[in-house]
Amino acid sequence: MATKTRAPKPETPPALRSTSQIPLRSGKPWQTDADTRTGRIPMALPHPTAPDASFRPSAFSGEAVPFGVTAFREGHDIIGVHVRLTSPSGAESLHRLSPLGDGFDRWRTLIAPLEEGVWQFRFEAFADEFLTWEHAADLKIAAGVDAPLMREMGARLFERAASEKGRGAADVRALTVAAAALRDETQTDESALIVVRDPSLAALFRDRPLQSLLTVGETRELLVERERAGVGAWYEFFPRSEGAKRLKDGTIKSGTFRTATKRLPAVAAMGFDVLYLPPIHPIGEVNRKGPNNTLTAGPGDPGSPWAIGSSAGGHDAVHPDLGTLADFRAFVRAARAEGLEVALDLALQAAPDHPWVSAHPEWFTTLPDGSIAYAENPPKKYQDIYPINFDNDPAGIRAEVLRIVRHWIAQGVKIFRVDNPHTKPLQFWEWLIGTVKDEHPDVVFLAEAFTRPAPLLGLAQAGFQQSYSYFTWRNTKAELEEFLTWISGDTADIMRPNLFVNTPDILTEYLQYGGRPAYKIRAALAATGGASYGVYAGYELYENVARPGSEENIDNEKYEYKLRDWAAADAADATLAPYLTRLNEIRRAHPALRQLRGLSLHWSDDDAILVYSKHLDGALTETGQSDTILVVANVDPHSTRQTMIHLDSTVWGIPRGADYVVEDLITGAEWTWNQDAFVRLDAFHEPVHILHVKESR
Amino acid sequence: MATKTRAPKPETPPALRSTSQIPLRSGKPWQTDADTRTGRIPMALPHPTAPDASFRPSAFSGEAVPFGVTAFREGHDIIGVHVRLTSPSGAESLHRLSPLGDGFDRWRTLIAPLEEGVWQFRFEAFADEFLTWEHAADLKIAAGVDAPLMREMGARLFERAASEKGRGAADVRALTVAAAALRDETQTDESALIVVRDPSLAALFRDRPLQSLLTVGETRELLVERERAGVGAWYEFFPRSEGAKRLKDGTIKSGTFRTATKRLPAVAAMGFDVLYLPPIHPIGEVNRKGPNNTLTAGPGDPGSPWAIGSSAGGHDAVHPDLGTLADFRAFVRAARAEGLEVALDLALQAAPDHPWVSAHPEWFTTLPDGSIAYAENPPKKYQDIYPINFDNDPAGIRAEVLRIVRHWIAQGVKIFRVDNPHTKPLQFWEWLIGTVKDEHPDVVFLAEAFTRPAPLLGLAQAGFQQSYSYFTWRNTKAELEEFLTWISGDTADIMRPNLFVNTPDILTEYLQYGGRPAYKIRAALAATGGASYGVYAGYELYENVARPGSEENIDNEKYEYKLRDWAAADAADATLAPYLTRLNEIRRAHPALRQLRGLSLHWSDDDAILVYSKHLDGALTETGQSDTILVVANVDPHSTRQTMIHLDSTVWGIPRGADYVVEDLITGAEWTWNQDAFVRLDAFHEPVHILHVKESR
Repeated sequence: MATKTRAPKPETPPALRSTSQIPLRSGKPWQTDADTRTGRIPMALPHPTAPDASFRPSAFSGEAVPFGVTAFREGHDIIGVHVRLTSPSGAESLHRLSPLGDGFDRWRTLIAPLEEGVWQFRFEAFADEFLTWEHAADLKIAAGVDAPLMREMGARLFERAASEKGRGAADVRALTVAAAALRDETQTDESALIVVRDPSLAALFRDRPLQSLLTVGETRELLVERERAGVGAWYEFFPRSEGAKRLKDGTIKSGTFRTATKRLPAVAAMGFDVLYLPPIHPIGEVNRKGPNNTLTAGPGDPGSPWAIGSSAGGHDAVHPDLGTLADFRAFVRAARAEGLEVALDLALQAAPDHPWVSAHPEWFTTLPDGSIAYAENPPKKYQDIYPINFDNDPAGIRAEVLRIVRHWIAQGVKIFRVDNPHTKPLQFWEWLIGTVKDEHPDVVFLAEAFTRPAPLLGLAQAGFQQSYSYFTWRNTKAELEEFLTWISGDTADIMRPNLFVNTPDILTEYLQYGGRPAYKIRAALAATGGASYGVYAGYELYENVARPGSEENIDNEKYEYKLRDWAAADAADATLAPYLTRLNEIRRAHPALRQLRGLSLHWSDDDAILVYSKHLDGALTETGQSDTILVVANVDPHSTRQTMIHLDSTVWGIPRGADYVVEDLITGAEWTWNQDAFVRLDAFHEPVHILHVKESR
Repeated sequence: MATKTRAPKPETPPALRSTSQIPLRSGKPWQTDADTRTGRIPMALPHPTAPDASFRPSAFSGEAVPFGVTAFREGHDIIGVHVRLTSPSGAESLHRLSPLGDGFDRWRTLIAPLEEGVWQFRFEAFADEFLTWEHAADLKIAAGVDAPLMREMGARLFERAASEKGRGAADVRALTVAAAALRDETQTDESALIVVRDPSLAALFRDRPLQSLLTVGETRELLVERERAGVGAWYEFFPRSEGAKRLKDGTIKSGTFRTATKRLPAVAAMGFDVLYLPPIHPIGEVNRKGPNNTLTAGPGDPGSPWAIGSSAGGHDAVHPDLGTLADFRAFVRAARAEGLEVALDLALQAAPDHPWVSAHPEWFTTLPDGSIAYAENPPKKYQDIYPINFDNDPAGIRAEVLRIVRHWIAQGVKIFRVDNPHTKPLQFWEWLIGTVKDEHPDVVFLAEAFTRPAPLLGLAQAGFQQSYSYFTWRNTKAELEEFLTWISGDTADIMRPNLFVNTPDILTEYLQYGGRPAYKIRAALAATGGASYGVYAGYELYENVARPGSEENIDNEKYEYKLRDWAAADAADATLAPYLTRLNEIRRAHPALRQLRGLSLHWSDDDAILVYSKHLDGALTETGQSDTILVVANVDPHSTRQTMIHLDSTVWGIPRGADYVVEDLITGAEWTWNQDAFVRLDAFHEPVHILHVKESR
């Protein structure tokens, strides 16, 4: 007879990491919970949650998500709270929440889901009979009140626990011995108190509490997406500029996907994860803009890539100057080989000569005079662009945009940076992103939503995985403290900000007038303050001259080719590239920096020294090692600041008053610090400490 | 042939008052709204709302309730937002919301529902075509851009408006003339601009906007209860003390309902609305407490009324010393004749000799030694009280408590002050209050919930109309500012606090050590800071001696009879009664003080001078007159304070910089004030200005 050999079970990757996982158990909900909205043990304000609970909150794989709920019961008895998770593939797990102890009856635990997809979770609250008894027995036996009664009640509790299914033999023995000791009348109350206070017995109830009045909350959902939905270092360049050449006649020959490919190793060497390209489509010739946004383009002016469409094609075409669709695919492959993922722009608007205009005039607004309405912000007009009117033929427009997105997905693109999404109907995005994600769950959309908080959060809630943020306009310590609190707080249940330091549209006064220190400061804050950040090419060359009266670069790359001499800048050491490279190295080495949450502000006595830390518990990291980064930044780019700072090390698990070592990951310097430390930060030398916090040796 | 005479239609009382009611219209929702959770015009965060949206928010009849929603659309076009209300009797009305203009896309209006019952409301957002055109036409015609086009678009808009159903003839004429003027090529663009900016034309669109993309939000509910659910001045006395007499042998003869009836005119004369009686039931004899909470009662000691039940009966009985059930009914009638509503205590616990204990031992907790568990807060025990165990026989306990509540309703009681509701299951209260209100919608429950915010708000959300509040422990200016903001803000959608200044359980340090000024200050703040407040008898006599180490009066009335010589105090002018009387007069004369909301904090330069105002728009008052009260309080009872205060009169509808007159309703003094005013408040004279703000003559 042949022996059957079983194939070894394939290793299932863990579905999650948790600070508080306990053995699974089932439980019968309490009987009176059926006829009231209130459960036997009331629970309220569960999170993660979207502001509108009919939407799903979201997270990225590996994100340490706080699961929390407000729970309390009448009177003095002690309760416990668990959260039960079901992974997308159906694996169930149970986790213990801890009370925050802030008087608001809030309970919380940190769990990092790894498996992508829709998770289910529900909170379960219960009367914790052991803890209730322990608390009363401790006080009453010590006070000489009801000692025999408390001892008998304890003995019964221990016996019940010993008889529960799933207890190990050693535990059963310990519980039985304890029950006997409490009942043993020859033993004094003092020795009974030792049993009451025995931490090893308490530990037996920590993971397997004696539950009663079990109350089960509503099942809710959390969408977990791939890590890049929340984490990444982005770099933006115009492929037409990379490899563009000035010809002898003074005109410039456009770069192509092939020439731009040569720049990929340098971008990858800086450690970026995503390469974002402005629109790569044919550019309109009608009303094309000239340099510096002038109304008349010369013959050699390439026009704005956002004025999409010409006789050469529309949103599904590649600009002939850049090459062919095959060239684009080759570029995407080359980028991938360098570890770079390509993100494309999705700008839903048309140049007047876009093929849509003649084929589908109903997708635009026709005015009483028969003309098509330009984009405008009255009285300003943008004559190179027709905005889409989404209300004339919603179904037709939906189908066409979906076709285009599918087309680029077929070319290997999985990330879209969406231009001005807040000028299109929010319900359109909910539909588009939902539909695309049903087919391709790994597609990521970044919203260029430089708008008010309500539409910004609305876009995030409707499905955008990432949002540009207000970061560029948050420059003072007070502004940054508020901003960092906002992005790492409640909004993190739906919104993952991408902290771009600059864009072709944004060169802030801080950068215009802050000199090279400003560039360093902003890069360091962006790379460590959120989980995603971005840099638009030229930042590393400190390009800081604005068009007069505007917040944009002069000779803006939107309207012309930009010939940058990377090699000369490297040779002259006139580049921030090494600093950016180091920032990205630090991000890769430190999982705490690949988290949006886990951020704590600390105090400094100087109004320009900003101090914050990011911490990730070892239970939530791949290595099992806790990770703590402390950032101390002089946000004044014009001076040296020195001050005392005051640190709450307890948020890193280091007891108040204990020494610890901090290593400056930029300079390599090390110091031993405690609650209070002195710092001196010279904006012209190193304006920012990025410190790795290590336990004292 | 007989002539039929029609009876005159009975006057229907108005269902509501509104700052923004407009003509009713129907509207067809926009077509794409069916397949996304996001509407064509996104709306979020509607209110009023309970924290848990599965519960109903609530209000009281006449309360000026802010109805609001966050609404925005893509791009620059202007939107409008309405709220559609349906009264309990089915009357529909439409109201225009105004943008708050704070950058958060919030819209709001104030509506005071009058009709009691469950109201429905939903928000409707739409593209406002007139305002969008007006904004663009104004800018563009003035800038010489697209003037003919803007004029033609305006003409078409006016024609569409003129053709709408329901427009009056004069309006149609004005719109037609305007359309012609815009189209008239002999007229200059300057004169066209006059049409664009014509306020009378704009007014025609204010109440009847040209709507498109109409988006209809979810229908939600608001429970409106009788005014006394939110508004009232309460007085508490122990009937056994009123008319109690010391006999020649030194013992005291209990007061009765008959003797207590004699005190009613004085309570009514002070202007109180509700008279609350501690439990009136038989008091347990087993383990009865003696004076000052001692464990042994003497033969003449009456015991705590909260230790309910003896051989004389339980929760449905009247203490024999007080009289009969008929005497109680007569007392309730006598109170009603004086304008006082009687509130009874509902304390769900039992003395050891309560009839429940023998009839239903399963309603209590039996310990392993066979005894019944006393109430306790380990290691403290309360041997005169058995707490109910609600989990052994939930159905039996529910039925019995419902029987008792119905019994007292049958005796004429419509208000219950519930003792320690946070020590009973919250779901029990949701069930009890819901069941009672289904039968008797005018019954009001006040929660004695001196507990943490989560259970406090949970009780309010579950149905309690009123809650004792943290007021007694909020004494500094900073504490009071936070407290007043909290009670008049978001929590007002579910919670109506009752600002008791003292109770038999609470004599705060502020009162113990603040002397007579403290009593005046706290009464003035309580009477004006919320909408309901309360006073426990003896406050007006400045009873301020505490039992050492406790926050209660010495010789607490809970455990003994209290013989107060009201007449002597009046004669000696050693009473706060005239001040309380004046406070209640002011409350009756000023509808702004019968509102929980409409409160604004103002600035003072002194850290003990608290400044707040309450304002009610004339559209929301019975008389049609706006009402504004400004309170300036020195909360330091030990000194005279003088300072500048800084007032934002715009919240009262008085332009910044305008003069206005304030009349001190306590002293009669009048001043003309502006943004900044000087105040001097002598704690020993009049520590609080209660000012009626009047337009300058």
